[in-house]
Amino acid sequence: MKVTVDLSVVPIGVGVSLSPYVAACERVLQDAGLSHTLHAFGTNIEGEWDAVFAAVKRCHEVVHEMGAPRVTASLRIGTRIDKAQSLGDKVRSVQQKLGEQYP
Amino acid sequence: MKVTVDLSVVPIGVGVSLSPYVAACERVLQDAGLSHTLHAFGTNIEGEWDAVFAAVKRCHEVVHEMGAPRVTASLRIGTRIDKAQSLGDKVRSVQQKLGEQYP
Amino acid sequence: MKVTVDLSVVPIGVGVSLSPYVAACERVLQDAGLSHTLHAFGTNIEGEWDAVFAAVKRCHEVVHEMGAPRVTASLRIGTRIDKAQSLGDKVRSVQQKLGEQYP
Amino acid sequence: MKVTVDLSVVPIGVGVSLSPYVAACERVLQDAGLSHTLHAFGTNIEGEWDAVFAAVKRCHEVVHEMGAPRVTASLRIGTRIDKAQSLGDKVRSVQQKLGEQYP
Repeated sequence: MKVTVDLSVVPIGVGVSLSPYVAACERVLQDAGLSHTLHAFGTNIEGEWDAVFAAVKRCHEVVHEMGAPRVTASLRIGTRIDKAQSLGDKVRSVQQKLGEQYP
Repeated sequence: MKVTVDLSVVPIGVGVSLSPYVAACERVLQDAGLSHTLHAFGTNIEGEWDAVFAAVKRCHEVVHEMGAPRVTASLRIGTRIDKAQSLGDKVRSVQQKLGEQYP
Repeated sequence: MKVTVDLSVVPIGVGVSLSPYVAACERVLQDAGLSHTLHAFGTNIEGEWDAVFAAVKRCHEVVHEMGAPRVTASLRIGTRIDKAQSLGDKVRSVQQKLGEQYP
Repeated sequence: MKVTVDLSVVPIGVGVSLSPYVAACERVLQDAGLSHTLHAFGTNIEGEWDAVFAAVKRCHEVVHEMGAPRVTASLRIGTRIDKAQSLGDKVRSVQQKLGEQYP
């Protein structure tokens, strides 16, 4: 089953600078060969369910290994069986509607 | 790795009544033997990471099998390595602080 | 417009014990006279849109006043115009379906 | 109080094609003069708290006016009082760490 995910990882107990931990997660996604796009509040990821969630688990492990005693994450998950839709398709679909509805 | 999760599943393309699908997910969690508590916006779950996420995947599959072409879910994930903390501990900890701070 | 909300507030930069801050938020909701129910990953809230979001803003302010340099929150928001549905209705609706589907 | 928000709006009861509704929300943000960036799972927004949440409310209203009987949204909210940090700063901060940690 294909899945698209939006992952936002927040380490707790390591002060206010979270970017080193987010960067480590980005690296996990890269090493897993998963298509992903960083934004200001998280990372869009797409792939097979098991590969994506193995990477999410690895993110938690890596952030703990870097010293975070506690990690909280917020995830959005999307699956659909009616058609294939990539992360890029989703953005383009909205942009196209924007052009049509508000030309 | 132990994990606590808050899962909110939203089937798309099946009308406005979502409770049959949420009930089916509850049944998945029950069958998986996972400790879980329903609230008005989702379900708290606790267990081993792999067991919990196998159940989350099964929820998506079951909701699709019931006819939903598209499923979106919102998840909160918590892991900690400094101490064990159950779902019940989390609630009691806040309630105790409420009693202390605002007696 | 009536709204139901699920709010999870996470202060950043104050160590790993978050319950005093969550308790302060509970107190904000109580003082605002909003119907709310605590669970292990957040708090269900219902009321008029403006009153609910004034309380969410006040939560952020109070947690900052308690010393948190940074606050992240995850919110689920539900509005519907087809019928009135309270937090209690939502839970009962799922529980009833559980009884019907899996008697 | 400045705020950064990540908003994902899901209309319920209007079928599986959600992009017209998301596009309408984008237009609300544009009309409000708020800085915002669309991604595949939502939209990053930044601005003053009251302006941002007025727009979020307007999104719900507009999607209902377009015919959705029910709307669910998932929001991430970030506030900080230690320093100003724009959406662009957040992304650049992670990208810089990626370059340093994994050159």
